[in-house]
Amino acid sequence: MSDVNPIDEGQNEAQIAPWRATVLTLFPDMFPGPLGTTLAGRALENGLWSLDTLHIRDFAEGKHRNVDDTPAGGGAGMVLRPDVLARAIDHATGEGDQRPRILLSPRGKPLTQEKVRELKDADGVILLCGRFEGVDQRVIDGRQLEEISIGDYILSGGELGAMVLMDAVVRLLPGVMGKVASGEDESFESGLLEYPHYTRPTEWEGRDIPEILTSGHHGNIAKWRHEQSVALTKERRPDLYEAWEREKE
Amino acid sequence: MSDVNPIDEGQNEAQIAPWRATVLTLFPDMFPGPLGTTLAGRALENGLWSLDTLHIRDFAEGKHRNVDDTPAGGGAGMVLRPDVLARAIDHATGEGDQRPRILLSPRGKPLTQEKVRELKDADGVILLCGRFEGVDQRVIDGRQLEEISIGDYILSGGELGAMVLMDAVVRLLPGVMGKVASGEDESFESGLLEYPHYTRPTEWEGRDIPEILTSGHHGNIAKWRHEQSVALTKERRPDLYEAWEREKE
Repeated sequence: MSDVNPIDEGQNEAQIAPWRATVLTLFPDMFPGPLGTTLAGRALENGLWSLDTLHIRDFAEGKHRNVDDTPAGGGAGMVLRPDVLARAIDHATGEGDQRPRILLSPRGKPLTQEKVRELKDADGVILLCGRFEGVDQRVIDGRQLEEISIGDYILSGGELGAMVLMDAVVRLLPGVMGKVASGEDESFESGLLEYPHYTRPTEWEGRDIPEILTSGHHGNIAKWRHEQSVALTKERRPDLYEAWEREKE
Repeated sequence: MSDVNPIDEGQNEAQIAPWRATVLTLFPDMFPGPLGTTLAGRALENGLWSLDTLHIRDFAEGKHRNVDDTPAGGGAGMVLRPDVLARAIDHATGEGDQRPRILLSPRGKPLTQEKVRELKDADGVILLCGRFEGVDQRVIDGRQLEEISIGDYILSGGELGAMVLMDAVVRLLPGVMGKVASGEDESFESGLLEYPHYTRPTEWEGRDIPEILTSGHHGNIAKWRHEQSVALTKERRPDLYEAWEREKE
């Protein structure tokens, strides 16, 4: 893990204002959870970003404080009520608050590193974590929620998705990672998967580090790594490879 | 959230044996974290799955117990050593242990719901969480690690990926979800994104529930929902739509 760098003195105030995440959830105790440790946790302590949680149930009404009800038209599970969620969202949204309002959902557009960089440049995010069968469509429309999916699989709720999104963004915030690990060589940043890594020991279980990496010839090393990236991407991710080929042309 | 059902009495022992996850990490305190609550947490308490963590640093040697070193050939960041990781993996792997050994990595094959179902049918998983710049390629080859990515973005480490994978699998284990929410209608299970949901109140901010859903005509409702799923998938996920069209033919 790289050291946390102090914020460069030359940065202007807009960059220094912390990136602000507000999470709407039925399980506020889950947060910060994994984000309270290591890179994101230190950045949180250092005020490089902030994290608030709102308990959706606090915005429910009536004796039972119900947040959900049966789906109109029948079917399995329960659906989160639009009125309760709207009150929570409105409470989270301050005056002039331009932060994107995101619903974590398998129906959403896939999260990409490009989207992560875009969110990093916003003032922060308001994240709504779904649970149960889903969320009433009217609050998605009425509060212009952007649906984002972290992958093509189903989770028990949006909380882990919210953590994944925040972790991906936070590590890119100014001052969070050292310059050394600023990520230019990483998977997706170039549109390709990353080349293989090697470190000590030089020989391990009869396996050597590829000779070229110990040659000291930086040009050849860079060329070899690029070729490895291209070959790996072509093999594992033909979709990324084709996009990269098109981009090149 | 649906109730946790007791295991059906008709199930055989192979199904009742708990699904066993072992996580190799530099941050064991992160676990179970979000998986200790709600659906996965109750299932853990009820013995429907088990979770062990191993601290990678416990398998390091020497005065400084180094787990990483600089990349051969130069470059940013640090690389996890093959010898340390191999000792941790070997320790986690019992005799006759057939569990898949998975490295969470952005270079991996994307996790899909199909893969989740496959992992559910295994005895469990051994999950290796990367950190720093990456993992020495020789231990990936030498210990036949399967690289899996939860999405096309970069996280600060593999821990959140491991949690996502476990959460997705655990909810499908026998006895974890009630039959009501067994997920046949869910996104990806049919190859399509899920149709929109509605619940009470019937009118909210001038927005009504679509009339068809209150018609009581189950055939028409099913047809409408399917059409909505197809239209949404076509709009948002042309990749899934094309795969679904091909499948249909």
